[in-house]
Amino acid sequence: MSGSIYGNKFKISTWGESHGKALGVVVDGCPAGLELSEEDIQKYLNRRRPGFSEFSTPRKESDAVEILSGVFEGKTTGTPISMIVRNTSQISADYGDIATYYRPGHADYTFDQKYGFRDYRGGGRSSGRETIGRVAAGAIAAKILKELGITFTTYVASIGDVSINRDKFDESFILQNELNMPDKESYEKASILLSDTMAQNDSIGSCVECIVKGMPAGIGEPVFDKLDANLAKAIMSIGAVKAIEIGDGVEVSKNTGSYDNDGFIIENDSVNKTSNHSGGILGGMSDGSDIILKAHFKATPSIASKQQTINKSGDNIEVCIKGRHDPIIGPRAVVVVESMAAITILDSLFDNMSSRLDRIKSFYK
Amino acid sequence: MSGSIYGNKFKISTWGESHGKALGVVVDGCPAGLELSEEDIQKYLNRRRPGFSEFSTPRKESDAVEILSGVFEGKTTGTPISMIVRNTSQISADYGDIATYYRPGHADYTFDQKYGFRDYRGGGRSSGRETIGRVAAGAIAAKILKELGITFTTYVASIGDVSINRDKFDESFILQNELNMPDKESYEKASILLSDTMAQNDSIGSCVECIVKGMPAGIGEPVFDKLDANLAKAIMSIGAVKAIEIGDGVEVSKNTGSYDNDGFIIENDSVNKTSNHSGGILGGMSDGSDIILKAHFKATPSIASKQQTINKSGDNIEVCIKGRHDPIIGPRAVVVVESMAAITILDSLFDNMSSRLDRIKSFYK
Amino acid sequence: MSGSIYGNKFKISTWGESHGKALGVVVDGCPAGLELSEEDIQKYLNRRRPGFSEFSTPRKESDAVEILSGVFEGKTTGTPISMIVRNTSQISADYGDIATYYRPGHADYTFDQKYGFRDYRGGGRSSGRETIGRVAAGAIAAKILKELGITFTTYVASIGDVSINRDKFDESFILQNELNMPDKESYEKASILLSDTMAQNDSIGSCVECIVKGMPAGIGEPVFDKLDANLAKAIMSIGAVKAIEIGDGVEVSKNTGSYDNDGFIIENDSVNKTSNHSGGILGGMSDGSDIILKAHFKATPSIASKQQTINKSGDNIEVCIKGRHDPIIGPRAVVVVESMAAITILDSLFDNMSSRLDRIKSFYK
Amino acid sequence: MSGSIYGNKFKISTWGESHGKALGVVVDGCPAGLELSEEDIQKYLNRRRPGFSEFSTPRKESDAVEILSGVFEGKTTGTPISMIVRNTSQISADYGDIATYYRPGHADYTFDQKYGFRDYRGGGRSSGRETIGRVAAGAIAAKILKELGITFTTYVASIGDVSINRDKFDESFILQNELNMPDKESYEKASILLSDTMAQNDSIGSCVECIVKGMPAGIGEPVFDKLDANLAKAIMSIGAVKAIEIGDGVEVSKNTGSYDNDGFIIENDSVNKTSNHSGGILGGMSDGSDIILKAHFKATPSIASKQQTINKSGDNIEVCIKGRHDPIIGPRAVVVVESMAAITILDSLFDNMSSRLDRIKSFYK
Repeated sequence: MSGSIYGNKFKISTWGESHGKALGVVVDGCPAGLELSEEDIQKYLNRRRPGFSEFSTPRKESDAVEILSGVFEGKTTGTPISMIVRNTSQISADYGDIATYYRPGHADYTFDQKYGFRDYRGGGRSSGRETIGRVAAGAIAAKILKELGITFTTYVASIGDVSINRDKFDESFILQNELNMPDKESYEKASILLSDTMAQNDSIGSCVECIVKGMPAGIGEPVFDKLDANLAKAIMSIGAVKAIEIGDGVEVSKNTGSYDNDGFIIENDSVNKTSNHSGGILGGMSDGSDIILKAHFKATPSIASKQQTINKSGDNIEVCIKGRHDPIIGPRAVVVVESMAAITILDSLFDNMSSRLDRIKSFYK
Repeated sequence: MSGSIYGNKFKISTWGESHGKALGVVVDGCPAGLELSEEDIQKYLNRRRPGFSEFSTPRKESDAVEILSGVFEGKTTGTPISMIVRNTSQISADYGDIATYYRPGHADYTFDQKYGFRDYRGGGRSSGRETIGRVAAGAIAAKILKELGITFTTYVASIGDVSINRDKFDESFILQNELNMPDKESYEKASILLSDTMAQNDSIGSCVECIVKGMPAGIGEPVFDKLDANLAKAIMSIGAVKAIEIGDGVEVSKNTGSYDNDGFIIENDSVNKTSNHSGGILGGMSDGSDIILKAHFKATPSIASKQQTINKSGDNIEVCIKGRHDPIIGPRAVVVVESMAAITILDSLFDNMSSRLDRIKSFYK
Repeated sequence: MSGSIYGNKFKISTWGESHGKALGVVVDGCPAGLELSEEDIQKYLNRRRPGFSEFSTPRKESDAVEILSGVFEGKTTGTPISMIVRNTSQISADYGDIATYYRPGHADYTFDQKYGFRDYRGGGRSSGRETIGRVAAGAIAAKILKELGITFTTYVASIGDVSINRDKFDESFILQNELNMPDKESYEKASILLSDTMAQNDSIGSCVECIVKGMPAGIGEPVFDKLDANLAKAIMSIGAVKAIEIGDGVEVSKNTGSYDNDGFIIENDSVNKTSNHSGGILGGMSDGSDIILKAHFKATPSIASKQQTINKSGDNIEVCIKGRHDPIIGPRAVVVVESMAAITILDSLFDNMSSRLDRIKSFYK
Repeated sequence: MSGSIYGNKFKISTWGESHGKALGVVVDGCPAGLELSEEDIQKYLNRRRPGFSEFSTPRKESDAVEILSGVFEGKTTGTPISMIVRNTSQISADYGDIATYYRPGHADYTFDQKYGFRDYRGGGRSSGRETIGRVAAGAIAAKILKELGITFTTYVASIGDVSINRDKFDESFILQNELNMPDKESYEKASILLSDTMAQNDSIGSCVECIVKGMPAGIGEPVFDKLDANLAKAIMSIGAVKAIEIGDGVEVSKNTGSYDNDGFIIENDSVNKTSNHSGGILGGMSDGSDIILKAHFKATPSIASKQQTINKSGDNIEVCIKGRHDPIIGPRAVVVVESMAAITILDSLFDNMSSRLDRIKSFYK
């Protein structure tokens, strides 16, 4: 099946492996007339670039993007935008022995079961480098959304048992620290935790939070294509995500209706809510308040500690995973979550355009 | 947009409103040769039928299903299966005043924002009765899966702060109690909690858990159409779900790699795992162990307590929601979660059939 | 696979067999706010209704449609519109022996090869009655298009070797004769030809032409989703169609560029063309002139003459097909062609709404 | 909308413009285990390569393909295959004045109407070079089909009024003449016609025929996803095609049922037909005989003769199109028709795999 294409009207088709020649994406359905340069894309790619922090893999990649089509005289033409990033620092030698066994927590075993064999170099298609295509496309979606007044604030909300202090939330700090946390205090605590974890040849889990501001109400489709349903798929499709929450998320199952419900209120002639437990979505459609979602990432499965597993010959063995790995996934995944949310929301905005006859008539008058 | 069609090869198209003439579903892509009767469907529909428990709405509906097409001489023909359930107990009078204001926690406001007006009777299309189509289709998917050796165990895992006792798990008890819990002790505790909640004119949240046994390994597609991503969409598309977890779910963000990873082990000549924190899915593909997922439902938004809201004229008002409502969503949603999981998994099995050239050649030899 | 769902944003899901309980369609993606009654649908269905002409099957069906959902207070709500037509005059006894052999020119053999068995009564799902769902949905699409100023003129352009006289084209005559031809002279000639054909226990082919007026320019997508490509699929999916032409159609392969090209010209301040060989489509997008398409229908395969075929036991046999059959397909298919064209064009109009950033910004301002 | 993605399970996403940096395609859904090299692709691309015949544009391009992903150790891995062809001979200077007016028969006007502006260099995305992606993907589809015993014979069947002589059909001659005709006599006649046409600064239309041998019966889906419907879309989506015929095509509308019908017959213990008017498809499914389809191409719209048109300022003007153009489209389009047919048929084979429960059970046993 075709599992590497996403979206309904704003469609992205990603490709590439960790240790292949290049990775990239084709964006089909980008509207014409958007000013777009490689710099717009590069800014986003740099947020997930490896090798520039003590808490990320030492594999250094410039991840320089080239736009190959779909842009003419500085503007999108409405035809497919093809973008490519060449791999430059792949060292296949690192991965020779991985070919013979199945790493715990990785997709080695499932890939072999599905396809009969796999590109074992650096995880092949299941590598985190697969997200390059998502982020390059996400940069475009986010740029369009910004023109519509819709913006994103995305950050690491917790690492292990260290959670952010919401009273000290400082949006400007997010991109100033390599853990992408929004307050200095928790960043420092988390840094110590991460150093300890690395010292123990271990890795750790994390939670990424994304806030979407400026949404018009009524976006999303009732029943199967609910906005939250599509966001859930988008976010859960990111490697290592094991849970997705909207608004209060798992907490709702413990609470009562009188608590979960958000009252509506007219303030300064505009509709508002007395709280936002719903996370900005009611009945699968945006309600005009901020969309709030959380993605829970498991710890990086590649750890240098001894683990039990099997090899392709069917023997029980013990392994320590060597090579260049991140000790945590969340910080570099912040921009991936934001990208997938942006693509999904933009697509929902497009889908919504034919929902009312009066609006269609105005459009075509 | 077309939001009421779901699935890629096993496609379901649902329709109908709470207080319309009927509800139903068309299943397109059901393989030929399955023995199918209305009784097969009815068994599933009865698990979500209202009016038969002190903890569900007093609206009594027999929800009798009629198969209109796609079955000939007791077997599916491969052509669309149309199924219909007539509404019999709708009382529109109940809903006169709802037309004028927006109920907190409901889709009233978002429907009006999207479409300009709405069928306000009983929530219209956003009513829980919408799930009739899902369950009728799910009954077919589950029957096919059973022939392939894949089975479901689905139950309420918690209600408010009452969680099940996993040491006393009794599968046979699930369908014997109206809360669909798997142990008597928690059922009794939860019953008391529910009675108290109802006495306070309130409602309460709940968590539904679904275990899928017998999955072959390698099902699901890497990248966007991961099995867990598709399950996340399927489950989050059910009204009132605000979070979805696979395996350890939200807990993974607090744990380390040495804990999150499941070791592989050969036992009795077959591949097994030393734990199942991954919930049966690695890299978006089934790993052959049980799939475990959790859906968190918010409390029923319709409560008879006083709530703040606004009316269509733009006034701030206070309302108490009358009518016939469930005080909890989870128990009746158990079969809905199971249905959506079954449809999604069956679709993934179909998608997987063209993944390897050798298997395609065997198929067409 | 799911072969009975059509459309991208205006999606129709049809179901039902010739001799089953009923046939119908679910329309998902119809915009909210359209005034819609059963009469709007019935008018279209009556144009394909059997039993009311000497040149159609004597099977009499009222084909009365019932709308089951998606309409509230006389207007579409934006949610799925389910429509049903009960079969009343099915006589299964007619079809007993058909079960045992494969009728030439029919789908009996291919159905058995695909599905292992078939509903043989009246052709089952491959019956012309399958088009009821298309026409019910087409009536809605055409009504929306009319509000946008887009209208259809569809008629039989030839029967056997009798072609219409374009100099005597009289649009009002089309619905006044049971052959749906646009001039009296050819209608009379064709009537004689048909009577002769029937007298010889034979049937005859025909060509249906469809003109779409009022199209805005720029509708359709470059490359795969060209407007003509989508129309070709839509029309070729109608049973018995073996060729589809746009504009000059097959003639273009015989002509030169200086002939095939249509010059542009400014007349009365608006863009016009000096000819319309392109049939209103250039590069897959509407050019603002009339869209012209032709569908070629083979003769009805059910004929009472002796034909060679095989039975399920693998014997060579000879058969005469009895039962109630049309001697020609075109006249009753006129409204089917119009319906499929309307659905396709409406879908293309919806798809086109997100093609330009400036228009998207106006929409969401 | 996303108009540059085609296919359901074997999905291709093409990109690139005539005078951009490169063109290419991402193939998603190619099964794992196919031996694949750049040479396999290059062979197909060379069949449409420009600059190597007196009857094609003098623009010389090597059209050398590079595979960037999805192949490991010489075999497809099941993940996306990205292929790229760099433009090397684009001369934008040629196209300066085209920016200001609308060429008759081209997509200039419709592109501007849809998107507000266009990449005017060499037709941009509407150039024939767009088919590079189709052919690169088609080479893969055709290679898989060959392993399943399905092969293609595709050729130019007529140019202007010169048709092939079917009695002298010589398959081996097709690739030995630059017009890709299957008999020497008509090739020579057509060459003279073409030289004359070019001398008159004109171009000419042509018809391409494609025969598919080795099809199993039962492929294609009833109703909308009929095999012929999908082929019609695939072929009509190729630039300059204005008509598509299956089997007898337009002729069926002139004939009788006793002629159009193909009798079934058992010969040497296998099912055969006494004729093949149906072109190998009955009720939208393959009947096991050869599939026969015809695509009618209009003459190349770029001609050096004087034509009437308008410029962007709204003036009526006369133009002669200069630059490097083919005088005929068919010969270089032969491999494009074959590619689109191959992709469509492969996709139908994949779709068909879940049509019967017994076969699904065998697959997953």
